[in-house]
Formats: sequence, C-alpha cells, structure tokens
Amino acid sequence: MMKLLSAQASPYGRKVKITAALKGVADQIETKAVDTLPLVNEELRRENPLSKIPVLILEDGTQIFDSHVICEYLDSLTPEPRLFPPSGPERFRTLTLAALADGILDAALLLVYEKRFRPEDKWVDTWMQRQQLKIDTALDWLEKAPPEMGAHPDYGHVTLACALGYLDFRHGGVWRATHPKLVAWLDAFDKAVPAFAESRPN
Amino acid sequence: MMKLLSAQASPYGRKVKITAALKGVADQIETKAVDTLPLVNEELRRENPLSKIPVLILEDGTQIFDSHVICEYLDSLTPEPRLFPPSGPERFRTLTLAALADGILDAALLLVYEKRFRPEDKWVDTWMQRQQLKIDTALDWLEKAPPEMGAHPDYGHVTLACALGYLDFRHGGVWRATHPKLVAWLDAFDKAVPAFAESRPN
Repeated sequence: MMKLLSAQASPYGRKVKITAALKGVADQIETKAVDTLPLVNEELRRENPLSKIPVLILEDGTQIFDSHVICEYLDSLTPEPRLFPPSGPERFRTLTLAALADGILDAALLLVYEKRFRPEDKWVDTWMQRQQLKIDTALDWLEKAPPEMGAHPDYGHVTLACALGYLDFRHGGVWRATHPKLVAWLDAFDKAVPAFAESRPN
Repeated sequence: MMKLLSAQASPYGRKVKITAALKGVADQIETKAVDTLPLVNEELRRENPLSKIPVLILEDGTQIFDSHVICEYLDSLTPEPRLFPPSGPERFRTLTLAALADGILDAALLLVYEKRFRPEDKWVDTWMQRQQLKIDTALDWLEKAPPEMGAHPDYGHVTLACALGYLDFRHGGVWRATHPKLVAWLDAFDKAVPAFAESRPN
C-alpha cells in the first residue's frame, strides 16, 4: 500500500487524487490527512523536509514529491489512459499547460497565505495585486483558447481543473463571470471525470 | 534560433543555461534579459501570463515554461548526456531531488521578495522563519547523504547546484559552515560542469 500525505483542501493533493482515480490505482493508496498550519509538523517534515503536501510514500519508504512528480509516477504505473504524452510537442504542450495552471495555484495560495500567516496590518496591497494579476492574465490567456480535451483528459487538464476549482473554493469563483469558455470547459471536465466532484474540498 | 527570456541573477534561468551547455545546444539559444521588478513587463507577460522567468520561445513561437519543463525539453533535443533518466526509480529519484532543490529556491526567493516587495514595517518574522526552516531542514536532509553524481550530473544535480549557488549569492553562503559534505559536493559539481561558473550571477 502506498501512502499519500495530503489535506482535504489541498489543490495539489487533489491533482494526485484525480490522477490516481484516472489511472485506476486509487485503491493502492491510503491517504493520511496532515495539518500544514503549524510551523512544524514532525510527521510531514520527516517525509518532505520542505513540509509541503502532497507527499507519496512508496511501500519501501521512498518519498516522492512534488505533485507534478507524483502524478507522473502514478501515470507510469498503468498504461492507459496516458496522462503524460511520452514525447514530442504534445508532451511539452501538456507540461506547459500544467505549469501555467500550477502558477495560477501558486499565486492563489500566496493570496490565501497573505491573510493566513500575517496580521492585517502587515498585508501589502501591491504584493497581492502582483499575484492577482498573474491569475487574471493566465485566465484571460486560457479563455482565448481553452485547451482541447481529446479522447481523455491529460495531466495538464487535471491541473487546470484543480486550479479553477481552487479559485471557486477560496476566491469565491469570481473568475466565472468573465471567462464563460473556461466555465464551459470546467463543466465538461467535471462530467468526464467523476473524481473531480469526488475530491471537491468543503 | 530559440529565445530564452531570463535574467542574469535568476537561479531558475541558470538551471536552463547549464542544461543547454551540458546538452550542447547553448548556441541554438539567444538569451534576452527581462526585468521582472515592475508589476507589468509587457514583453514577458505576452510570452508567459504568469510573468515568470525563464521562458523558452521556439522558432515557431511556441512558449515553454517553467524551468523544469524547459530543461526536459532541452534534454529531448540531443541524446547524450541524458539529464532526465527515461523511466524507473532513477527517474523519480532525480525528479524528487529537483523538486526538493526547487523548493529550497522557492523559499529562498520568498525571503528575498519579503524585503524586495514590502516596506520594512510589513516584514513578518514568523513567515520568514517558516521559509528559513524549509531551507535548513532540506539542507540537513541532503547533508546526511549528498546525491551521487554518477558518470555525469543529471537534472536533479543541476537544480541542487543552482539552489546552493543562490544561497551563496543572496543569502551570504551561511549554509556552508554547517554543511561540509554539501560544500564538497558543490565543489565537485563546479569542477565537472564549467557552465556552472560561467553562469554565476554577480
């Protein structure tokens, strides 16, 4: 049995859960919820010195992180559906889309952390504006041409869905009003991938 | 000719430069320095909506990011030396090492950004402590068993070298006093990879 250290609300952990479901290996993974709020969580820090989730721990104790690496590992366990195109332009299109979606997530997380880890008199508007602009610009870019899903979603699509899901969860879904094509895209993903609804944070 | 948007001091850009040199494709890349300090740099934002460097632009205009994806792309251009093991435990060992080193970099950058993007009265000690602890814990973990270099460095080694180089550049090299094995490791990398010295920020 593999072990996944994660948290119910983690969008990066959600990427892994959806990937595991798509690959048919979810029943080989036991998920352990860890709390990343304290400065030190000894259990997490022992498995990933960065104290970041998710971490996948193999049966032999090997730790695998971050979410990108875990998803690629899970993709290697079963042949179909292939979530990481093996080579060529499709591979780098998928990986760049995932990096873009991870970048949306990173900025959205920093906005949450601003309020979680700082008293209100230490918030800095220009810093938050900087993060918000990354999110908005990335969404506008994606709205122009939402990625095509093909026969099945790939790792880039999974990451984008988790990024949009996180904007719904922590940022009130305000992106929806101005990005109708992305809303339709996420609806289609939701219908195609039951694990998306099953892993929805609350 | 490919184009690389980066900055002389960027540790993520340095990863790409070293990878290009190791793969023998540096002369196929023209590097363009971009300034990431302003809220908006239109040239950068057009190529990567996250406004992050590095970005690799192919001859046909395709953008590739982040540094992980760019390095893997460059690795695919020539057969030897192989910086990303194609599969198996070695691949995920290399990728997890790189994720660990990128995590050191991310935390070290957030420490720099605290002072670059906030006035002094908005600095938060507990936030900086949180980032510093990630760096220190990761370095202690690596010090216990520095990664073996094998016949040639791989992508994990390149990333670790750039992380340690960044701690030298922006954080006064204080890590050196308490991590003698990592110091020796970096010396060996420096000797084996001329592009490391050639890409040193100043």
